[in-house]
Amino acid sequence: MPSSPGRTAQVMADIRRRAASRQLGPGDRLPSIRGLARSLGASPSTVAEAYDRLAAEGLIRARPGSGFFLAATALPLSLAAVAPQPEREIDPLWMSRQALDGGDAVLKPGCGWLPADWMPDAAIRRALRTLSRADLSILTDYGSPLGAPPLRKVLARQMSMAGLPVAADQLLLTGSGTHAIDLICRFMLRPGDTVLVDDPCYFNFRALLLAHQARVVGVPFTPEGPDPDAFAHAAARHEPRLYITNSAIHNPTGATLSARIAHRVLNAAAVADTVIVEDDIFADLEPEPSARLAVLDGLTRVIRIGSFSKTLSASVRCGFIAARPDWIAALTDLQVATQFGGPSPMAAAMVAEMLIDGSYRRHLDMLHRRLNRKRREAAASLAELGIQPWLTPRAGLFLWCRLPDNRNATVLAERAFRENVVLAPGDVFSAGRTARNFMRFNVAQMGDARLMPMLRRLLGEVPPYGPPQQPGRDAAGMTATGASS
Amino acid sequence: MPSSPGRTAQVMADIRRRAASRQLGPGDRLPSIRGLARSLGASPSTVAEAYDRLAAEGLIRARPGSGFFLAATALPLSLAAVAPQPEREIDPLWMSRQALDGGDAVLKPGCGWLPADWMPDAAIRRALRTLSRADLSILTDYGSPLGAPPLRKVLARQMSMAGLPVAADQLLLTGSGTHAIDLICRFMLRPGDTVLVDDPCYFNFRALLLAHQARVVGVPFTPEGPDPDAFAHAAARHEPRLYITNSAIHNPTGATLSARIAHRVLNAAAVADTVIVEDDIFADLEPEPSARLAVLDGLTRVIRIGSFSKTLSASVRCGFIAARPDWIAALTDLQVATQFGGPSPMAAAMVAEMLIDGSYRRHLDMLHRRLNRKRREAAASLAELGIQPWLTPRAGLFLWCRLPDNRNATVLAERAFRENVVLAPGDVFSAGRTARNFMRFNVAQMGDARLMPMLRRLLGEVPPYGPPQQPGRDAAGMTATGASS
Repeated sequence: MPSSPGRTAQVMADIRRRAASRQLGPGDRLPSIRGLARSLGASPSTVAEAYDRLAAEGLIRARPGSGFFLAATALPLSLAAVAPQPEREIDPLWMSRQALDGGDAVLKPGCGWLPADWMPDAAIRRALRTLSRADLSILTDYGSPLGAPPLRKVLARQMSMAGLPVAADQLLLTGSGTHAIDLICRFMLRPGDTVLVDDPCYFNFRALLLAHQARVVGVPFTPEGPDPDAFAHAAARHEPRLYITNSAIHNPTGATLSARIAHRVLNAAAVADTVIVEDDIFADLEPEPSARLAVLDGLTRVIRIGSFSKTLSASVRCGFIAARPDWIAALTDLQVATQFGGPSPMAAAMVAEMLIDGSYRRHLDMLHRRLNRKRREAAASLAELGIQPWLTPRAGLFLWCRLPDNRNATVLAERAFRENVVLAPGDVFSAGRTARNFMRFNVAQMGDARLMPMLRRLLGEVPPYGPPQQPGRDAAGMTATGASS
Repeated sequence: MPSSPGRTAQVMADIRRRAASRQLGPGDRLPSIRGLARSLGASPSTVAEAYDRLAAEGLIRARPGSGFFLAATALPLSLAAVAPQPEREIDPLWMSRQALDGGDAVLKPGCGWLPADWMPDAAIRRALRTLSRADLSILTDYGSPLGAPPLRKVLARQMSMAGLPVAADQLLLTGSGTHAIDLICRFMLRPGDTVLVDDPCYFNFRALLLAHQARVVGVPFTPEGPDPDAFAHAAARHEPRLYITNSAIHNPTGATLSARIAHRVLNAAAVADTVIVEDDIFADLEPEPSARLAVLDGLTRVIRIGSFSKTLSASVRCGFIAARPDWIAALTDLQVATQFGGPSPMAAAMVAEMLIDGSYRRHLDMLHRRLNRKRREAAASLAELGIQPWLTPRAGLFLWCRLPDNRNATVLAERAFRENVVLAPGDVFSAGRTARNFMRFNVAQMGDARLMPMLRRLLGEVPPYGPPQQPGRDAAGMTATGASS
């Protein structure tokens, strides 16, 4: 077979795809010319020409006598590789980047945070003025590796009052809630380890776990927490290293974990020797505390994480981890090695100030009332379009809704994005991609009068997703196993 | 052989050591009872009893029919495992933790930063008051994934003026300089990859690379940069993925890279296809810019990182990466996945304010003059004790000094620590542990009158290190290869 331009391009595309999907890493040897020719049904001269062209581009390099290798300067570990380029698919990272990137002209009913004008403006400005008079060491030094003692003290007191006694050596401040989970993953996971998540779950868990090269298995979620039988089954079958979940105000559903399911999940995790990360970043939006895995377990195999990004300021960058002292010691070493110090001592001082002077508590009271009202209003507006919440959350920002007539939420989100509206389609939350006609709405970001008419119009335009839902599927439209890798 | 209590304890200690040193990870299967008995020369009943006792402790768990496994709740990936417990050896992490942890009662001539009262007090407080009047979105939102545009614009302009043209999509803000290197390592490295560092180098590079499970190879360092022949040899032999270095005001030596060596290092890196991380966090302390790998290379295979922790405030937590646009895109995704957002927009706004209003430039002028004076004074005081700098740095905080009579710097640091003085002994900077009679002094942290008398007394007490230095070794006391893993 002679070399042909079309075939050469195909072989080049094949190698590029392997590099982008990380089947081939920088420095890895490429298949031999003969071997690849055989497996692709191409001529050796076609493959040789493709390799020469890729070497000229710099993607691969020849080493005399030992073959071709992917260049170190080729794009290595890339999260973007999970989606085709250049038109990036709607995936978890697309979701984060669009929500973060969009300027003021973009409406964001799909984002996961409150509008700036819901935040405690006066309290933050007052805390900054107070900070401008603080000890110089707070303004210039690295601070303690565990994080600023005043904030750690307030947090420990709050947790103890909520039934979770926490000693001083069980609490580490971090740069954010996501950073807290990332440190835990670095500490606990090795590439190929299995991690359980809820299906659906917060979409960035999946991007984060991809960065750790973990295998993600979804457990079907019910209005009271993960399906306990499916959880026990997945735990026994996969012996996962970690399970990551939100117990209070679950993202995206807004569900609350019941004590009954909490108890069963803990027992199944104990049998499988699985560590649980309870991500409580929305917890302060709860008017009354609900069941917590960390409280039942007493920080034996449960790690609690939190932050102030959702309730106070995302600009302040401050999260925390509560865990066993030996784990906190190791996590502190990891944070020093990888960040040289925890969160900004200035940031911790600002947060502590607002927690101590009562402005945070008053702000939360206001948020509860305002979110309750907006949740009712949003549910009523969406109902007019036939968009129904899966459950009525007790608290929080989110309504997890089914689109009418099995409309494809991903296509709807793509069309809305062209009109400068960022929506959050179900599949970015689902490891099993089983929520194609679901959408997460942020009730605090739906005030713009253009939104509902646009949704109504687009609902009429987008196609339904595949066949109608099977009656055997559960209320969230998820498959029986929910497992996917 | 019957089971004996002493032998049982030995077997238990052996398994604990394997877990601590990560030979055994959580979930890993332990050796079979018979196999371990054979290899340790113990009786199977001794090993069985040791396993039962470890299972009762929770370190390991039995799975009926399939043997014993290290428990997931056993201490997994632990950087502390590199040093024996509970009395931790003086290692890179000990160095960081002690320098960060010590309160005001501790003298820190071994730390790597300026005292709080050297920092621009008035400018920081003014920037905080300005910030308290900023747009609410800066005070509450996540900000753009690449980092705040005003700071990125100033940084790009400064780099362009220094001969390194940088486009808007080539600059990413991060949480710190260390965090910048950590992101790059996550992007570039896989466990087992080789990374070149200078011998000696900044000690936290080694802790960071341990967290990435990289193999670290040290290249002997000369007063003009890495030994170019040794670098070319190590690059050719190990084909390292990365080389991490400081070109300006090298840590710990204070050396300045020469243009001649920069050129040779770049060529050797190109042959071996090695990516270079040029850590420039001390660069602003240079009165005149010196040779830079990034400038010669134009951000093809060199990545430049920097931060403001050393020159403005370590509390403000803001670093940056300048690199190829495709790498910046992938690093941005990684930062979103692992931190959800870059540095605090508030922090970036404060830094930008001080860069734009000229207070940073005036502060740097003051720092140059003050450091020059302190460097002369410290060198004179140390000379009285027979402590000689390896070279006289053009700028910066550090004096890298040889102790007289081959005194053991690690023992000296241990004794000083008991007297609340944190010193920085040579070996924490040396991948090859070839700097046992060297010490890094921070000239800005030597003002306390107790320091010199204590050093004089301790120098008389501590033993010399091993045999006298071989004449064949170079001035830094390093071996010819400097390679170590």
